[in-house]
Amino acid sequence: MEVWRTGEFALVREIRRRLAARAASLAGADVRVGPGDDCAVVACRSGRELLLKTDEAVEGVHFDWRWVEARAVGRRAMAQNLSDIAAMAGEPRWALLALALPPAFEAERALEIVEGAAERAAEFGCALVGGNVTRAERVAVTIALVGDVEPGRAVLRSGARPGDGIFVTGEPGLARAGLLALAEGRAGHDAAAALGPAIARWRDPRPRIAEARFLRDRGGARAMIDLSDGLAGDLAHLASESGIGVRLDESALPVGRALEAAARALGQNARTLALEGGEDYELLFAAPDESALGARAELEARFGLSLARIGVATAGGRLEIAGEDGRVRPLAAQSYEHFRPAE
Amino acid sequence: MEVWRTGEFALVREIRRRLAARAASLAGADVRVGPGDDCAVVACRSGRELLLKTDEAVEGVHFDWRWVEARAVGRRAMAQNLSDIAAMAGEPRWALLALALPPAFEAERALEIVEGAAERAAEFGCALVGGNVTRAERVAVTIALVGDVEPGRAVLRSGARPGDGIFVTGEPGLARAGLLALAEGRAGHDAAAALGPAIARWRDPRPRIAEARFLRDRGGARAMIDLSDGLAGDLAHLASESGIGVRLDESALPVGRALEAAARALGQNARTLALEGGEDYELLFAAPDESALGARAELEARFGLSLARIGVATAGGRLEIAGEDGRVRPLAAQSYEHFRPAE
Repeated sequence: MEVWRTGEFALVREIRRRLAARAASLAGADVRVGPGDDCAVVACRSGRELLLKTDEAVEGVHFDWRWVEARAVGRRAMAQNLSDIAAMAGEPRWALLALALPPAFEAERALEIVEGAAERAAEFGCALVGGNVTRAERVAVTIALVGDVEPGRAVLRSGARPGDGIFVTGEPGLARAGLLALAEGRAGHDAAAALGPAIARWRDPRPRIAEARFLRDRGGARAMIDLSDGLAGDLAHLASESGIGVRLDESALPVGRALEAAARALGQNARTLALEGGEDYELLFAAPDESALGARAELEARFGLSLARIGVATAGGRLEIAGEDGRVRPLAAQSYEHFRPAE
Repeated sequence: MEVWRTGEFALVREIRRRLAARAASLAGADVRVGPGDDCAVVACRSGRELLLKTDEAVEGVHFDWRWVEARAVGRRAMAQNLSDIAAMAGEPRWALLALALPPAFEAERALEIVEGAAERAAEFGCALVGGNVTRAERVAVTIALVGDVEPGRAVLRSGARPGDGIFVTGEPGLARAGLLALAEGRAGHDAAAALGPAIARWRDPRPRIAEARFLRDRGGARAMIDLSDGLAGDLAHLASESGIGVRLDESALPVGRALEAAARALGQNARTLALEGGEDYELLFAAPDESALGARAELEARFGLSLARIGVATAGGRLEIAGEDGRVRPLAAQSYEHFRPAE
């Protein structure tokens, strides 16, 4: 039934009912008052600092209904925000979700967005404690997340020093390959083979919460960012905040079989995808080599997550990449630009 | 210059620059890391509980550019959220702002929205510590607010008991009169006279932060809500959460000279505006009569805010209103319905 038939208040009541059914599993999140009052009431863990983040996913900008179902939109939007908590080495605690809906949108799908978000949050110990529903022309999901971290232990973007190794987890570029596959309408036949892992990565990215804390505590990570804009773009943010330059080693980019296969099926260059593709939500960080390399085997064993040393932090602000032929060229830091006019 | 020319990153840099200039005045808000990293980092006050809230203002739904300039849109959106912290008797601490903009929107006006929001927050000791900018078809301002309150002292909607007096601050209905005046294009000539106060109230509502805490501590308020949907609608929320009925006294509705004058100029009934008009952000609460009436003079003296006892909480769930002729009729709880199709 469309939301204009259901009505705002009935929809909100049903959202609350479904969230309440989930609340029991989140007793550890210290929720005193959940959805339904003027505010949610929660209890801080003593001595922790709070991490605050908001991000928005808009229909036609961040996702397209041809590519992704309602539950996955909720899961993705939540994962995006969770990933920013990960990038500080924090733990997510409570989430708010503001949902904008066209009047003709199906109420059941609206509920699936909320449930997808709540489900993804709960997988990381985080409770969806409130929100808002409003009318708009297009669907938009705006999440605000509150996490916490031991005092003074948040890993900022600004902590890298010249000489640090530059590291990245997983296989960046895969999510962009998945997005391209979806945009080309190739989620069908060949999805199970060459494009399946890429599509799955774009549809349901995994925030690296525990992995980031491990990399801080055991891997020496002292500047960190999550990959949303793409490796080159996010590296530029990290370098600029730390006041360093970076020399990447092109041959060290983690291009594995999944990315190779997807790039081939799409007629794309795998290294370009790895450098410029966004929305992987992997971790990019700077750390002393001995610490990070020393933690690599345990990261792989405990979390099944690979780690690549892709370059080195340098003095001065230049971003460069050394090709396989040994020639060094400037690294173009292309980031996704929201306001670029449609082509 | 339009935001697609400025570019997202330049706009975000300029937002940060302007917020940084304001940050010095907010040293008390315990902000460790402001905008610019993956998350903001802030410190809880020890022993406090947190209040979490999000609300959204959408162009064409909540405001119209013919009625309100960019700075006022930011101020209003922030005030709306602050008012929910007030309704729990909490103190606002940190805000996040997600801004959705069409590519042709002027960058300077986008900055004014953010500055208006930051300014309104700062007036109540609250720091704007982060946010997000994205593209959309229409302007939307989504704010998430974190406040805090002494443990166990949040005033919920559910605390009213039969026999409690029902009280409201200020002059509800005035904001709706202002909105009607703006919609009829009457912000010009007669604005200074009959319609000026009403228009000012709609444009720049004042969250009742300190007043709500005073009413909790000195006025015995034990169930409270802020007036966003309108007195009758919000009373229905409070009654339903508390499991009480209410009998209002029509002659006790606070219809003062400003509302009378505005209603006359608009050809509206002042009492209907008082009952059904929304967006006043006054406080509606239940309290033992002796406590609330005992605090009335001090509320007026300290805050310049009037208080009216408009009815009584009853056992059972009925909402009624006693007219001046003594006849009791059911109170229709009309709330604004976002998804109602356009007429």
